[in-house]
Amino acid sequence: MPSNVAVVGATGAVGTEMLRILAERSFPLAQLRLIATVRSAGRRIAFEGEDHVVVEISDRAFEGIDVALFDTPDAAALEWIPRAKAAGAICIDNSAAWRMDDEVPLIIPEINADAVLQHRGVIANPNCTAVTLLMPLAPLHRAAECTRVVAASYQSVSGAGVAGVEDLYEQTEKLLPERDAVRRGRVEGFVPSGRAFAHPIAFNVIPHVGSFDEGGATSEERRVAEETCKILEARIDVFSTCVRVPSVAGHGVAAWAEFSRRLTPDEARRVLASAEGVSLEDDPGSNRYPTILGAAGEDKASVGRIRSDPTNAQALAFFSTCDNLRKGAALNAVQIAELLVARGLI
Amino acid sequence: MPSNVAVVGATGAVGTEMLRILAERSFPLAQLRLIATVRSAGRRIAFEGEDHVVVEISDRAFEGIDVALFDTPDAAALEWIPRAKAAGAICIDNSAAWRMDDEVPLIIPEINADAVLQHRGVIANPNCTAVTLLMPLAPLHRAAECTRVVAASYQSVSGAGVAGVEDLYEQTEKLLPERDAVRRGRVEGFVPSGRAFAHPIAFNVIPHVGSFDEGGATSEERRVAEETCKILEARIDVFSTCVRVPSVAGHGVAAWAEFSRRLTPDEARRVLASAEGVSLEDDPGSNRYPTILGAAGEDKASVGRIRSDPTNAQALAFFSTCDNLRKGAALNAVQIAELLVARGLI
Repeated sequence: MPSNVAVVGATGAVGTEMLRILAERSFPLAQLRLIATVRSAGRRIAFEGEDHVVVEISDRAFEGIDVALFDTPDAAALEWIPRAKAAGAICIDNSAAWRMDDEVPLIIPEINADAVLQHRGVIANPNCTAVTLLMPLAPLHRAAECTRVVAASYQSVSGAGVAGVEDLYEQTEKLLPERDAVRRGRVEGFVPSGRAFAHPIAFNVIPHVGSFDEGGATSEERRVAEETCKILEARIDVFSTCVRVPSVAGHGVAAWAEFSRRLTPDEARRVLASAEGVSLEDDPGSNRYPTILGAAGEDKASVGRIRSDPTNAQALAFFSTCDNLRKGAALNAVQIAELLVARGLI
Repeated sequence: MPSNVAVVGATGAVGTEMLRILAERSFPLAQLRLIATVRSAGRRIAFEGEDHVVVEISDRAFEGIDVALFDTPDAAALEWIPRAKAAGAICIDNSAAWRMDDEVPLIIPEINADAVLQHRGVIANPNCTAVTLLMPLAPLHRAAECTRVVAASYQSVSGAGVAGVEDLYEQTEKLLPERDAVRRGRVEGFVPSGRAFAHPIAFNVIPHVGSFDEGGATSEERRVAEETCKILEARIDVFSTCVRVPSVAGHGVAAWAEFSRRLTPDEARRVLASAEGVSLEDDPGSNRYPTILGAAGEDKASVGRIRSDPTNAQALAFFSTCDNLRKGAALNAVQIAELLVARGLI
């Protein structure tokens, strides 16, 4: 039976992608409601040839809604998800606000679909970098029990929303003719201070995603560790460094993982070749491996550069990518909604 | 006493930087000879207000030369370094050709200057990513004996020479107006195939630096491991993933290192604050940490994001950067030449 679906944060980078994916996958919609803050209310957005007017978020906006796909800042998710739930909507939330709540399942449908049965009105969508790591790690973990991960990320600016994309394009345009300034790292006079990042991002790499805690780790780095353990229902020592790079869409992760037994690259490739939602791209001799541009626009996560660590028989490395706005956010959220439909939960 | 210095590969990205650094540091020059392939021979290059004509490489080109700074492909270094040495020049080589030769010291002057005493006419300059890792790792290793490193790199296109820089700028210019193609990863029709990389590099991240071996590792990744052990004269298990990013100058390394005892972030900061050639930039609360643009044009390597691993008491992480063309190549080579002068070896 078609459902009444709301997209909350419908004008943002992820919200826009949610609409595109609902259409692409012909999600069975009875009604579609686009919700945003007062700033965007009244805007018209075309969906399957029909104009939809964005409405301001309110308790009334959730009346009659079966499923609400949320992509908002954490504070808005904390405030509005209980209210949307009270109005009868099942909420699928892409913020970090509810992910580690014991009553909220945190789901990647290819990995832990059954967790949906525990939902009490709220289901969380994981962090995009955690998704990029987990799509290949989960099947490997099932094969050989992962005990430790050390990872570094390569995260596109769209992870910081529309403002991040605008900053990158605007700064890149300004810096293109200023080759000597870029070469010498003296760009301050040439770029306006951006909105999304603490430093200019064009032609730069910034080891800072999220906010810092007292120990010097970022919220993003903590999330990769915590969410990995929650989704895999395992105690794995995960350490990551999360880094912003000047690409538009697509996240990458360079991962080194230890397992409880030796897992050869060939066995890992066999496991990953049949893993749902994963595209094995691992033929370096033909320059075939995941790249960030290769991930952009794709539904599957990609994995390649699979190799053993010559200094550690139980360690294996890989490089994985996914489209941070799609599998890392909007697609995964829509897949959770599809799971609710498939399991008869709405 | 001033020396006769040759720069071999004088028109390349590193060669150009060598000339700039010789001038900046007022290296005591009696004569400067610019050497390149026949393609560049005859070009005029200004140095300290005087035009120098580039001469074609030949045995005669090395006659009377005291020190030859080489930046050429490995094959040219293999062929010409023995000939330059036979002509009486001490060769400082930035290629990978001689680095692991037992008779060739591999030197970062701040770390293992005394190795220069073992030279037999050839001294190797380390890989730029190894330098970026080692500038902070070496003092930490002296303090607490490092046993294992897992690292991922963020390497600017200038590491692939002038062609790499041209590819990035040309592709970026072509892709700037093609936002939807970039967002969807469909850039093939919009960019000419570049000269330096296997895939378009603009707005991309490519986990491929160097050439692949049968086990799927790259030459760059092997060098980071081998050169770390050679320079530190230690057996350390080093595993790295080397990745090209769309920045112009500056390399970054996200490193996770295990030590033979617990090394707290505060102790590490004290060690690094007084380490020669290292700039400690570690105040995340004020958004102070190394970035790639921050490294460009600087002589020192930078280190920050120093933090312990909550899952492993003997592990410590950091993010380091350096200008790959300067400290990662040209500056380090000139520093080796200065070391020869200081030790009375020329």
